[in-house]
Amino acid sequence: MTTDMSSLDPRIIARGREFFASISGESPSVFNKGWWTGKVMDWSMKNEDFKIQMFRFVDVLPYLNTSESLSRHIEEYFAADDSNIPDVLKWGATKTKIGGGLVAKVLNKTIRSNIESMARQFIIGQVSKEAVKGIKKLRKDGFSFVLDLLGEATVSEVESDAYRDGYLEVLEAMQKELSKWKPLEGGNNDLDWGHAPKVNVAVKPSAFYSQSKAVDLDGTAAGMMSRIEPIYKKVMEMGGFMCIDMESLKYKDATIELYKRLRTKYPDYPHLGIVFQAYLKCVDDDVRDFLAWSREANLPVSIRLVKGAYWDYETVMAKQNGWEVPVWTHKPESDMAFERVSKMILENSDICHYACASHNIRSISAVMEMASDMNVPDERYEFQVLYGMAEPVRKGLKNVAKRVRLYCPYGDLLPGMAYLVRRLLENTANESFLKMTFADEADMDRLLENPEVTLRAQLEGKTVPPEPSEGLARFQNYPIVDFTIEDERKAYPAAIAKLRGNMGKKIPLYINGQEVETSDTLDSYNPANPDEIIGSVCQAGVGEVDRAIEGASEAYLKWRDVAPEERAEVLLKAAQYLKDNMHDLCAVQILEVGKQWDQAQGDVAEAIDFLEYYARETIRLGEPRRMGHAPGEMSQLFYQGKGVAAVIAPWNFPLAISVGMVAAAIASGCPVVYKPAGISSVIGNGLTDMWKAAGLPEGVFNYCPGRGSVMGDHLVDHPDVSVIAFTGSMEIGLRIQERAAKVQPGQQQCKKVIAEMGGKNATIIDDDADLDEAVLGVLYAAFGFQGQKCSACSRVIVLDPIYDRFIERLTEAAHSVKLGPAENPANYMGPVVDKAALENVLRYVKIAESEGKILVKREVSDDLKATGGCYAPLTIVEGITKDHRIAQEEVFGPVLSVMRAKNMDDAIDIANSTQFALTGAIYTRSPANLEQARKDFRVGNLYLNKPSVGALVERHAFGGFKMSGVGSKAGGPDYLLQFMDPRLVCENTMRRGFAPIEEGDDWLS
Amino acid sequence: MTTDMSSLDPRIIARGREFFASISGESPSVFNKGWWTGKVMDWSMKNEDFKIQMFRFVDVLPYLNTSESLSRHIEEYFAADDSNIPDVLKWGATKTKIGGGLVAKVLNKTIRSNIESMARQFIIGQVSKEAVKGIKKLRKDGFSFVLDLLGEATVSEVESDAYRDGYLEVLEAMQKELSKWKPLEGGNNDLDWGHAPKVNVAVKPSAFYSQSKAVDLDGTAAGMMSRIEPIYKKVMEMGGFMCIDMESLKYKDATIELYKRLRTKYPDYPHLGIVFQAYLKCVDDDVRDFLAWSREANLPVSIRLVKGAYWDYETVMAKQNGWEVPVWTHKPESDMAFERVSKMILENSDICHYACASHNIRSISAVMEMASDMNVPDERYEFQVLYGMAEPVRKGLKNVAKRVRLYCPYGDLLPGMAYLVRRLLENTANESFLKMTFADEADMDRLLENPEVTLRAQLEGKTVPPEPSEGLARFQNYPIVDFTIEDERKAYPAAIAKLRGNMGKKIPLYINGQEVETSDTLDSYNPANPDEIIGSVCQAGVGEVDRAIEGASEAYLKWRDVAPEERAEVLLKAAQYLKDNMHDLCAVQILEVGKQWDQAQGDVAEAIDFLEYYARETIRLGEPRRMGHAPGEMSQLFYQGKGVAAVIAPWNFPLAISVGMVAAAIASGCPVVYKPAGISSVIGNGLTDMWKAAGLPEGVFNYCPGRGSVMGDHLVDHPDVSVIAFTGSMEIGLRIQERAAKVQPGQQQCKKVIAEMGGKNATIIDDDADLDEAVLGVLYAAFGFQGQKCSACSRVIVLDPIYDRFIERLTEAAHSVKLGPAENPANYMGPVVDKAALENVLRYVKIAESEGKILVKREVSDDLKATGGCYAPLTIVEGITKDHRIAQEEVFGPVLSVMRAKNMDDAIDIANSTQFALTGAIYTRSPANLEQARKDFRVGNLYLNKPSVGALVERHAFGGFKMSGVGSKAGGPDYLLQFMDPRLVCENTMRRGFAPIEEGDDWLS
Repeated sequence: MTTDMSSLDPRIIARGREFFASISGESPSVFNKGWWTGKVMDWSMKNEDFKIQMFRFVDVLPYLNTSESLSRHIEEYFAADDSNIPDVLKWGATKTKIGGGLVAKVLNKTIRSNIESMARQFIIGQVSKEAVKGIKKLRKDGFSFVLDLLGEATVSEVESDAYRDGYLEVLEAMQKELSKWKPLEGGNNDLDWGHAPKVNVAVKPSAFYSQSKAVDLDGTAAGMMSRIEPIYKKVMEMGGFMCIDMESLKYKDATIELYKRLRTKYPDYPHLGIVFQAYLKCVDDDVRDFLAWSREANLPVSIRLVKGAYWDYETVMAKQNGWEVPVWTHKPESDMAFERVSKMILENSDICHYACASHNIRSISAVMEMASDMNVPDERYEFQVLYGMAEPVRKGLKNVAKRVRLYCPYGDLLPGMAYLVRRLLENTANESFLKMTFADEADMDRLLENPEVTLRAQLEGKTVPPEPSEGLARFQNYPIVDFTIEDERKAYPAAIAKLRGNMGKKIPLYINGQEVETSDTLDSYNPANPDEIIGSVCQAGVGEVDRAIEGASEAYLKWRDVAPEERAEVLLKAAQYLKDNMHDLCAVQILEVGKQWDQAQGDVAEAIDFLEYYARETIRLGEPRRMGHAPGEMSQLFYQGKGVAAVIAPWNFPLAISVGMVAAAIASGCPVVYKPAGISSVIGNGLTDMWKAAGLPEGVFNYCPGRGSVMGDHLVDHPDVSVIAFTGSMEIGLRIQERAAKVQPGQQQCKKVIAEMGGKNATIIDDDADLDEAVLGVLYAAFGFQGQKCSACSRVIVLDPIYDRFIERLTEAAHSVKLGPAENPANYMGPVVDKAALENVLRYVKIAESEGKILVKREVSDDLKATGGCYAPLTIVEGITKDHRIAQEEVFGPVLSVMRAKNMDDAIDIANSTQFALTGAIYTRSPANLEQARKDFRVGNLYLNKPSVGALVERHAFGGFKMSGVGSKAGGPDYLLQFMDPRLVCENTMRRGFAPIEEGDDWLS
Repeated sequence: MTTDMSSLDPRIIARGREFFASISGESPSVFNKGWWTGKVMDWSMKNEDFKIQMFRFVDVLPYLNTSESLSRHIEEYFAADDSNIPDVLKWGATKTKIGGGLVAKVLNKTIRSNIESMARQFIIGQVSKEAVKGIKKLRKDGFSFVLDLLGEATVSEVESDAYRDGYLEVLEAMQKELSKWKPLEGGNNDLDWGHAPKVNVAVKPSAFYSQSKAVDLDGTAAGMMSRIEPIYKKVMEMGGFMCIDMESLKYKDATIELYKRLRTKYPDYPHLGIVFQAYLKCVDDDVRDFLAWSREANLPVSIRLVKGAYWDYETVMAKQNGWEVPVWTHKPESDMAFERVSKMILENSDICHYACASHNIRSISAVMEMASDMNVPDERYEFQVLYGMAEPVRKGLKNVAKRVRLYCPYGDLLPGMAYLVRRLLENTANESFLKMTFADEADMDRLLENPEVTLRAQLEGKTVPPEPSEGLARFQNYPIVDFTIEDERKAYPAAIAKLRGNMGKKIPLYINGQEVETSDTLDSYNPANPDEIIGSVCQAGVGEVDRAIEGASEAYLKWRDVAPEERAEVLLKAAQYLKDNMHDLCAVQILEVGKQWDQAQGDVAEAIDFLEYYARETIRLGEPRRMGHAPGEMSQLFYQGKGVAAVIAPWNFPLAISVGMVAAAIASGCPVVYKPAGISSVIGNGLTDMWKAAGLPEGVFNYCPGRGSVMGDHLVDHPDVSVIAFTGSMEIGLRIQERAAKVQPGQQQCKKVIAEMGGKNATIIDDDADLDEAVLGVLYAAFGFQGQKCSACSRVIVLDPIYDRFIERLTEAAHSVKLGPAENPANYMGPVVDKAALENVLRYVKIAESEGKILVKREVSDDLKATGGCYAPLTIVEGITKDHRIAQEEVFGPVLSVMRAKNMDDAIDIANSTQFALTGAIYTRSPANLEQARKDFRVGNLYLNKPSVGALVERHAFGGFKMSGVGSKAGGPDYLLQFMDPRLVCENTMRRGFAPIEEGDDWLS
């Protein structure tokens, strides 16, 4: 049974008018300017900067445990410029002793209590007792409820357990009261309105499994199930209803999968719901598929449809990751989808109960009219609104539809503040229906019009920005893999299997356009299974190196003069080759160096980025720059490649860093002799294939793996090498610099050494840090790819006041991750890169044990141990101070030192106390400390409220100073200059007193 | 007796109308499109590119001696893009066999003969016989003449002699004919019109003294006089008239002086004229002063007033040198000045005969009306026009005024072409009266209107470009000293005298804000007089170096964080100090290192430039740069100073290079320990005074002269030195690089070495080079400041076809310059910097003698030798090939090797054949060879048709590669980066899913 929307529209509008009429003159309390919240909302809507500061301040407030800390933050957030606290914040405080730079205690208390009461407006209680009491009151007012426990950000399995227990506890508490609750009107049995269970809870599934991730759909669904099932059992026991909430897109498929498993496992119990979000572009398909599944499985379902609460997050993440934006980008499109999908659900009311969750009177009216048009029985749909929001709407709804359920969060104010911020944002967003209706007092006709009409009006007159007509498009990072896409999840195992069928072969050198075999070879093995040989790689001796340099020197004479645009073209073709072979290239990394799927993809993506970026850079730098403005003179600065470059690459970003250094040289006009790390020489051979595919002229790239002890010095010392680009350890880097500085007989140029060396990177945890993010950030920065990144966090410096809380959560989080081969995407950490690396890490673990107190030392299972894989224990050690070796020496493995700091000065002092200055991170919500870190935490790449790893080309142009490197930045605007010599040509254009006047000349005006 | 101009205006216009009417329908032959010249003129006026190519081609034509060369140039100039010669050039050629890439011989001949006949239109004859014949014909037509010999570009005294002899020869020739010439009408005696000598010659005074220069007014006037006087005597003997022409502004004062000397010496002979140029802003004052002198000396004079022929040159040079433009910048201003000055002259007709030289009918009419109004007798004024130009005007003039004299150049076509180009430019300039009148057929009223009215119309609606409202004005080089200004000429001797009264003192070190005296001192002496001690300079030992580094290290902690704008402010104050003390600073250089006045001023000016440029650069680089566009993330790249910089400076640009390196470091946030060269430590001490005056905080600059053998290595090796900026010899540079690459115990950073080292710079002379410029350019590049510049030309590579001509002129030019102490501005070359330098040069002179054939070896006079000054001989050696030591090793003194090249490929191969790649130059008028040089002549700074020395900050950002340096460019946009480490701070601005969207974010459109 369907309905014709266009004919329905006048009725929807009519009903909407009625609705408005019925609540005429009322306004949600949140907009009541007589009260503090209303004032803040009002001020926030008028002043974007204040809004940002206010909401951020609300967010951090629960962490501000001392009066000093509270005062400081109030000043930092609100009085930075004029040391005047905005009046709105002083509301309710006694007028005496207020103002000036120092914030009086009374103001502190006032602000805190104001914000807490604002939060309480949206949160039904802080503990289960309060929650149950609140519910009772609501029911007395004729509203049913759905209860939601705050605090879904769990970083460890212990926290997930606790979260589950929280639900069980509140259910227990309700169970005791349940019998006293009279069914809501129309109830002729124990069910509200005669059909709805009295108890209704919502669960956010990712909270129940701290290891949830999109790539591991099966494991994630199983993990969620393991803790949600006991709750569901309890709900069933109580005859209640459970709704599985929908969170961000990355958990969507696992959430649907969870629903299906749970629903199938208990086929006879119908009161299980799920949420779909109308703002997702895929919502129509998802709901259609879901209903089809229901029908096919013959399992009635229940759907709550919402617009969606993570629009900003989804959009920002998509933009940051280079993905298509998954949500509608015009508000009316979400409204349209809401009506469209509501219609679909109502058309399936025989198998699908519908909870319409919106505050939008147009949307509500549409659902009402459609349901009435389709004669959907009352018991097949209900309305839901949020507790504490839109009181006029809930009142109007109750008048008309009776069946109104309030979504009631409860729990600690700490997670509650995050919830509060979401609600505040929702109420102050420009396109918020509530804001438009109650704050802006928009025209009712506009509010009720068909969203299609609204959309048309919005799009009208909007011009599509023109594509750049010539030249390359602006550089954009290659997208991070999106594992919400099923094809991506399938492609990795397929590529690994394909590789396994075709590996272990002998790999020749590639010199001056020819494949060259040597008798000496080196086997490269899978660190998770050393018996598995990835390839047997020919090893260059000094003879091969000489031939390679000779070929490169010859190629230089032509390549340096090839037009920058032409060189760029070759790089772009190389990038295309990598894009076309993405999964195969990832597979080699997964097996040869033990990279997790996402890490491998990140590495190949970075290689693509280097090619795309340097292609643009060589064009940019290739344009001669006019110097000065003198008439009669044309002076131009331009660059030429320095000469042959020796590229000595590491194994940890085996493709990215190799391609980066090689592409920079080649883009700059310098032919390359490339020595990959022995451990990753098979990946390195990918460069040969890549440049061949790109049509690079012979001799410009030479693949020259070899034993450092045999040919390393020879390569560095060679008089015909002009540039040495090296990434690796400090020891080797310094050796190269020293040797390269010695001029050899016949040498015609000073050698340029570009060296990226080690790090001993610190992350500072301020006492107001958002621990939900900080714990996961540190964990990832320290143990991602087994800590084998020069950017890895190897020291976490924690401020004393938050030390215990942070360490507890970190420790538990570390105990929660899965260990095992990288090819299984469930595993968080795999083997280190080879046996030598394992030995080195074990040596440092011993040092750690002797210097501090081990908090975590996690080994893989005995089964895995038996495979002979190079598994180093995940190690966290505390009690470390500046003087300890483990605080000073680079481990390059999964060993994290925890250091305690008295205060921020102390923390920054500790952070800066090594000879390295590569990366760093700080988690803080103090504006002043962010500024201090920006200034005084002196490293090449500093991340504020972000992990110190995962640098992206251009955006996070990468490289350090002190003993971390020579101060270049790979993927940055100055990088190519290092491979180039500047030349200036100045022409006297005056002849016989006559000079043509050029554009830009400093001529007569 | 004066006249009222405004009342005169209607009469002037009326007379002009009559004039026009009298020549109605006539047009100068140069615009006659029925002939080749007219076609070319027409095409040139329509097509600016063609005009430039055409005039340049005309300029080079006389050098194209072979058919091959001519063909090649025609193709290069006119067929570069479409290999189609413009039709106009084919005019007159048979239609067969023309077109296509290869230019047929017939076309060659046609073009050459067309251009030659074009030249003959303006030139009365190539040899004296022809000239005399031509004159006879003119006189027959009723015109008198003034004869001018072409070829005024003399580069040597031999050429000046020859030029003088040319005049004597033609006078001789005329003398033979003179008696046969009947006086022109009205002649009642042997004088034309009864009052004017029949013989009339014009002389360009600078041609008679190849060593003319503005700075040496007295010497220049004397030099000119020495060769003009014999001509004048001959003229007097023949009862003739001689007019001293006015050339470019730089010779103006010497020319006036010459006139006065000559006029005073022969007070009884009245027929001596001088020219003034109405386009000069100073013309009113000059003429007024001149007339006053005449009256006071009671010596009647004669003035020819012209508008002026060097407008482009004067304007371009002023702009290039940073001078106020000396000429009127609006054409009507010159016309106004012409009328104004004419009036002044006519008012003084009792003592001043007037020759009105203009083709402008308005100007002519104005003069006629004024003369008539003032009743100036006919014999007190006449009119002059150029031979071959403006035939209708001369005809009209003759009808009205009778007394019309034609200015008749004669001489070789080679210099004639230069004259031709001037005439062509004049005829095709947009504001040319002739072009407007006869080519554009402008409205007669417009042509005759009062130039004041024209000016008002031109200025109307012109808006003054707004001053930049914030920030510093765009960088501009400090002006080169203008020695046409008398005050400048006086300031140098005064400053030198002042210095002499106050020198020889003990100079302390300056460490961490304190003056430090040491017992060890080093005397710095005047190389022209080693007995004269400039200063006794304290010498730092390792202890002082340690203290300086310690102070600098401490200062670093603050200075690195001082805002770039604030650091810039200090640099600008330092620049102001140098500007305020310019002459005193020059004086030290003149005495301590033997710099000529202009060289010393250039050095101080360059120091100012470095300060001004780096101040702007540090602000530019100080602005954090957003990286990428991801919303929810604010990623910024910025820079911080690396640490303590050791600056090790050379003596040859003792202030400029010192200040450059030091200012770069300080601008970048790096405190400096500065070691000047021992030879120039007194100049180096100027930096202490400068930074004190600028208010630089203590410890940021430390003056640490010392013996390299004692403290050099210690400074380089010191673990707390982060940057070493060095300029000097390759040997020391490489030693520093090698030592600095070795990490010392306690060292916290990789040292950055910026090394500018030697050069062995070549200048190529193509077979079509403009030798007038090439000879002087090479001479200056090789022997300016005694060849003691790293940019100095030490090899001149001459193409075989032009070898003999070039070498002859170069040799004679080298024999012509004056040698002696730098403090006498007449001297071109002085002593080398010290006794050791002298010994070194003498060693190389011996090598030169053994390897090649000495062309020039000029010693100073015995008198000067006796002073003990460090005079090295000015040496030119030929027969040098690539393998000779003198072709490979840097001499750093006045020794020039001449090398012969078969062709351009060979020349470039020779040029590139050393281990250095610093500067280079080429003189060629072949567009293809300019392109080839631009591409293949691989040096840091290449100059096309300019000397290889005199690099200016920014405009000629300076530095080389190969063994000349590490590829940085001082005074260029990448220089400061070397003193800085890049830092990137990336803030995650998203909290709780909410990110403020920033400008520039890649957000939804």
